[in-house]
Amino acid sequence: MSLINTVTVETAGSSYPIRIGNGLRRELLVQLEELEAKGSKLVTLIDEGAQTAIPSVFEDSLSRFPSLIIPSGEKSKSLERYGRVLDFLASANLDRGGVVLAIGGGVVGDLGGFAAATYMRGIRFIQIPTTIVSMVDSSIGGKTGINIAAGKNLVGSFHQPIAVYIDIDFLHTLPEREFISGLAEIIKHGMLADRKLFDLLAETPIENSRDDRLGDIIKWNCEIKAAVVKADEKELAGSGGRALLNLGHTFGHAIENVAGYGEYLHGEAIGIGLVAASHLSQRLGFIESADVGLAISAIEGLRLPTHLRNPLRIDDLYQAMTRDKKVKAGVIRFVVMKSIGQAATIESADAELVREIWRTVGAID
Amino acid sequence: MSLINTVTVETAGSSYPIRIGNGLRRELLVQLEELEAKGSKLVTLIDEGAQTAIPSVFEDSLSRFPSLIIPSGEKSKSLERYGRVLDFLASANLDRGGVVLAIGGGVVGDLGGFAAATYMRGIRFIQIPTTIVSMVDSSIGGKTGINIAAGKNLVGSFHQPIAVYIDIDFLHTLPEREFISGLAEIIKHGMLADRKLFDLLAETPIENSRDDRLGDIIKWNCEIKAAVVKADEKELAGSGGRALLNLGHTFGHAIENVAGYGEYLHGEAIGIGLVAASHLSQRLGFIESADVGLAISAIEGLRLPTHLRNPLRIDDLYQAMTRDKKVKAGVIRFVVMKSIGQAATIESADAELVREIWRTVGAID
Repeated sequence: MSLINTVTVETAGSSYPIRIGNGLRRELLVQLEELEAKGSKLVTLIDEGAQTAIPSVFEDSLSRFPSLIIPSGEKSKSLERYGRVLDFLASANLDRGGVVLAIGGGVVGDLGGFAAATYMRGIRFIQIPTTIVSMVDSSIGGKTGINIAAGKNLVGSFHQPIAVYIDIDFLHTLPEREFISGLAEIIKHGMLADRKLFDLLAETPIENSRDDRLGDIIKWNCEIKAAVVKADEKELAGSGGRALLNLGHTFGHAIENVAGYGEYLHGEAIGIGLVAASHLSQRLGFIESADVGLAISAIEGLRLPTHLRNPLRIDDLYQAMTRDKKVKAGVIRFVVMKSIGQAATIESADAELVREIWRTVGAID
Repeated sequence: MSLINTVTVETAGSSYPIRIGNGLRRELLVQLEELEAKGSKLVTLIDEGAQTAIPSVFEDSLSRFPSLIIPSGEKSKSLERYGRVLDFLASANLDRGGVVLAIGGGVVGDLGGFAAATYMRGIRFIQIPTTIVSMVDSSIGGKTGINIAAGKNLVGSFHQPIAVYIDIDFLHTLPEREFISGLAEIIKHGMLADRKLFDLLAETPIENSRDDRLGDIIKWNCEIKAAVVKADEKELAGSGGRALLNLGHTFGHAIENVAGYGEYLHGEAIGIGLVAASHLSQRLGFIESADVGLAISAIEGLRLPTHLRNPLRIDDLYQAMTRDKKVKAGVIRFVVMKSIGQAATIESADAELVREIWRTVGAID
């Protein structure tokens, strides 16, 4: 695929392009030079893991900007690392006209986006996602944030980037485990919003970055995400809306939290979370057992885990769920499928039922 | 004064009341009970210095909420203290429906507001200012933030409170130095927006909290601030707008930064900053020498400093100015008076002139 596609994200305060394709170097350079010509200072925040991949995709076009390397992994989404990023922005003398380029996966995007959201009460930033998760999910929609001991993404801001550059060539540079982990958000989008996407993945799983359907599939996912964000940018809808993107996440976040960040890659925890959400959907009478089977088989087909590797305690997992941001006035909000390809939010679910669901994915009392 | 007045702050996303008067306990209680009835969890962040004053104003009506005491002084506006506040909100199990009550001066309001702005990407908060500065300035308009080594308020968010309760009775509990410091923002409002307010203060200075004009003067100041905020909520105006509120602050922030936070109370640094801004306005041909004299005499009349207590180095002060948030594309933006009661922003000023101005308030080479 040499075609470059655009998906436009429309939000209340702004509208910005996601450019998707191979060889985006030249047009990225044009935008950066335009920003510089207007007096903007630019800096890069680069994921340690993406660092070696950048020359193969962008050559040396970013090397002239002050740069901060962010260690890979969820642990970098800490208050301490956030402080270091802020100090870096100040040391590079960034003013209100400055622009941050966040190059890497969801960690760098979330951390860099939050720093950009709050440095001088908000400066501009550009997302250059290098992983699947960040290409189809975290780089789009303006959710930024960090973790604190009590939970994942408990601190953050809504702050939209001014542009997202998705260069598919980065996918060839990903470790296999990371590549597979990213597929969780793609199958999630199919399960919550588009049966055709689900079927496509279930029938012929994506095996590696050379799959020539990948460019179109990523664009498709960006469209799904952009439509949801447009309808409910700040996740204020009384039901449905942006919260639907959390399918599998109430369970998945609890797994990451209890197992300790880094034990499971985000997509791995979400793989298990999607299985749990499927079971819950079935037990609440929304979908058939056969649908649960289809979901598990599609998730397995992508080589994602569908069961905890080592048992975790149900009490701990339940407790972590109650600290999730989706909880309001003590009620845990779950996302379920009404059918494969159509999700809905439900207020609360019987605690004993939730405990049973945890058992089906390998948790223990 | 037993009358309770309201000033309404109108912003793009919301409109909220500032209630001003004595004995606001009962109506505050009503609002808190309404919030609780809807399932909201409430917590208080209390300035250490305000702690002992609260029973005399609100009796024990706030004592049932989980509470975190914030040490007094600018040093609490740190990343580390911010982290502790976030942990506290999580430990009190606050969810998206939670409400933070920030009780104290600008430090607690800015810190608590920033924590509320970013905890779960934004929860509601109520400002209960207990100092003059926070009553007439920092509690109104949604600017929240913390300091980092490179500068004051370099990190923060715009996040409007849902209500501001200004109970004048708190002023009787302030240490004299703190009370006087607060008057700097009042005289500043006169100098930048209202000659009548300036004249009132210049002719008969406020001496203490028993001055029976105080309730009306505070309301007047809230109106000035609210009007400016309404016109330019996020300080995006090309000239003038919200930036006018920074009269004296480009100089004042540099003093606080170079002297070390805590050495000068904020209002003390602003007192000197207003003198510097007056000199600059005169040197640029906007006002007469006699006006500078009037300004200095009014500031002195309030017993605020008009000269550095100990000399600071001009190079350090100038360097600190270039890190100010008002700097864009390397240009320091100054606020000057075109006449007493009318301010304007100017882009840049001759560096040598700025150094001279620093000398007039006691800085050295």
